Amino acid sequence: MALIVQKYGGSSVSDAESIKRVAKRIAESKRAGNDVVVVVSAMGDTTDELLDLAQQVTPAPPQRELDILLTAGERISMSLLAMAINNLGIKAKSFTGQQAGVITDAVHGKAHIVDVVPSRVRETIEKGAVAIVAGFQGVTRDTNDVTTLGRGGSDTTAVALAAGLGADVCEIYSDVDGVFTADPRIVPAARKVERLTYEEMLEMAASGAKILHLRCVEYGRRYDVPIHVRSSFSGKEGTLVTNRPLTAENGEELPMEDPIITGVAHDRSEAKITVVGVPDVPGTAARIFEVVATAGANIDMIVQNVSAAQTGLTDISFTLPEGDVPGTLAALKAAQDELKYDSLQFDDQVGKLSLVGAGMKSSPGVSAKLFGALRDAGINIEMISTSEIRISVVTREDSLDDAVRAVHTAFGLDGETEAVVYAGTGR
Amino acid sequence: MALIVQKYGGSSVSDAESIKRVAKRIAESKRAGNDVVVVVSAMGDTTDELLDLAQQVTPAPPQRELDILLTAGERISMSLLAMAINNLGIKAKSFTGQQAGVITDAVHGKAHIVDVVPSRVRETIEKGAVAIVAGFQGVTRDTNDVTTLGRGGSDTTAVALAAGLGADVCEIYSDVDGVFTADPRIVPAARKVERLTYEEMLEMAASGAKILHLRCVEYGRRYDVPIHVRSSFSGKEGTLVTNRPLTAENGEELPMEDPIITGVAHDRSEAKITVVGVPDVPGTAARIFEVVATAGANIDMIVQNVSAAQTGLTDISFTLPEGDVPGTLAALKAAQDELKYDSLQFDDQVGKLSLVGAGMKSSPGVSAKLFGALRDAGINIEMISTSEIRISVVTREDSLDDAVRAVHTAFGLDGETEAVVYAGTGR
Repeated sequence: MALIVQKYGGSSVSDAESIKRVAKRIAESKRAGNDVVVVVSAMGDTTDELLDLAQQVTPAPPQRELDILLTAGERISMSLLAMAINNLGIKAKSFTGQQAGVITDAVHGKAHIVDVVPSRVRETIEKGAVAIVAGFQGVTRDTNDVTTLGRGGSDTTAVALAAGLGADVCEIYSDVDGVFTADPRIVPAARKVERLTYEEMLEMAASGAKILHLRCVEYGRRYDVPIHVRSSFSGKEGTLVTNRPLTAENGEELPMEDPIITGVAHDRSEAKITVVGVPDVPGTAARIFEVVATAGANIDMIVQNVSAAQTGLTDISFTLPEGDVPGTLAALKAAQDELKYDSLQFDDQVGKLSLVGAGMKSSPGVSAKLFGALRDAGINIEMISTSEIRISVVTREDSLDDAVRAVHTAFGLDGETEAVVYAGTGR
Repeated sequence: MALIVQKYGGSSVSDAESIKRVAKRIAESKRAGNDVVVVVSAMGDTTDELLDLAQQVTPAPPQRELDILLTAGERISMSLLAMAINNLGIKAKSFTGQQAGVITDAVHGKAHIVDVVPSRVRETIEKGAVAIVAGFQGVTRDTNDVTTLGRGGSDTTAVALAAGLGADVCEIYSDVDGVFTADPRIVPAARKVERLTYEEMLEMAASGAKILHLRCVEYGRRYDVPIHVRSSFSGKEGTLVTNRPLTAENGEELPMEDPIITGVAHDRSEAKITVVGVPDVPGTAARIFEVVATAGANIDMIVQNVSAAQTGLTDISFTLPEGDVPGTLAALKAAQDELKYDSLQFDDQVGKLSLVGAGMKSSPGVSAKLFGALRDAGINIEMISTSEIRISVVTREDSLDDAVRAVHTAFGLDGETEAVVYAGTGR
């Protein structure tokens, strides 16, 4: 008998029918002899509808009130799901983030979990019932205020709860069959990856793969919680994310080639800022990025041109999430006198492609093959960055899909059958 | 400077626009120098929509989960209202029933408030902010489970909070201007009553006047909280419910006549059960009503026919809420052998009219005038019951409106202008 934490996203519980379908799946897991704890997101578009209501009331809602508003969404889905499971003859009780002991800091809108004290959840499963827990939400320890965890919050709730309960596995259900070698909507020949390490999954997530959020994977790695990414629609085995790489030693298939390419991720959500005409003297770049940091922006890639000898000036470009652009431009503008640059350029038509896999840096052939594939496809590379297990390049946004397909094929990742894609995405 | 608790029903906060309108009214009360605590119901039809979702998932939802589901409604309205008030430049914070310290027993679906510990609400108003509290909900002390208070729950929350805070007045806002001498939808000439005692209001509420729920008035009487019933649409002074009757001594107008007739209430929600052919021996009626009590029914009026001398049998009729009929019939059926009656009759086409006012029982002219007015209008009386300040009669349901109009006119209650009626009703 195993203890399983299952997480269902908004697209899996979008209406009464799909809630009943999910209830059946949970009942099957329970009848198979497992202890089951379920984390659930808000139904379908509930969160967007609530945000829209808030916008109708005020252009700048206080974050504390916004958190209270948004947590109504999981309250609805979790109680309905508990009802549906009870209707199948299996006892189920639902718990808010607070009742489940999800303690967070007080940063409303993007709170971090600081502790999980799931005593009521544990009591419930010890009595043989299923515990349903609201994802995405927690409570502050001191003031008893409701918080939300921000993007990927429900996944993080599930993994944190699995860690706190010492669960055998955390199953993340969504509308895709698992982690693919590329987004199947762009590369129909993309294959499902059977197994990944936390590090590979982190690089995929950081590179734009939407399937699991960075925070959830980080949590899983820190507490060594096996994460099973699978579909609530198909019932197939999905992708297992653990600390054990796929090797011959642990009795599993050897990869087809060495290094092991996990997949090709892409990201359209970043923008590029170029600071033009910066004096090429020591410390300038440092000052620029100090200014950027005060604006709270998360810098991704940085490129500094070679200085033109006759002017002593250079250009510095960096990428960052589009949402951070206005604040960053304002901060740089305010510091123009001190930084002594000529002008600022801003470009939101960029796309990022990342090739992720173990042992890449030690295989120089990988980057040569990557650049060759892009050259053959006629795609221009604007920026490059590498890590131990990832190579990322920035291209024009409108050539990003072609780039992903070309690289996927060049590295022999294409499968023989088309991947199945379901509609919608979860919270 | 006064401390005012204001309660707004669902029809007052049915969409973003009406929430902004209510926010303005709250801001005015605050800017006039008062401390303001607001209790709010779920938006418009939210509760019905959530109940409908639950019905789609299961025909018999567990009450605990239903309570969690329904309390999502106030979570949405209270946070939106807090946002709207903040947007007007006045600080406002919203609190769930739990955060506001509304402690109840564990009877899900119709919990009773056992204690109010509003320390966070008090802190909030002491800091000069408006506290918004979710109506209709509380939390159990021991298990920290969410409960709902049942019909009239938000009104009860408001009065209980006013008592706990020692507020100067509890204002109940809805879509009518106050308590009327009769339902203005039936009697267009009905007049607004300026002032009522708790006892008169209790009789009105118990007799079918929907404006305030029985529990809320009982709470107000027990803790002596003045209740001001008024409209969130018109801004007019409404009806004040206190422990002070309207007399010349407290410097207010003397009533037009003596006894003081408060108004004419009506109720279509009851049914009549007749137990036919009961042996007319001592103790029979007692056993019948013991059986009825085990079915949990709330008996209202009882009539026993004069026994027919030759048979020694009699009929016993009583009225009760329609919802209690099936269980009561089943309980009586199961006890037929013991009770030795012939048959059961059931009638849901009955209506009840009640004349409410102080000092009625001591004025024999009142009942004579009432029966005369009904006779002149050609309306047959099926049952009669009286209390210190009320006379109720049961008629055919389809002649109830005519009966209400005839009695209203006979007692000189008709006003000169038509009452204004707004659409919808709150929770």
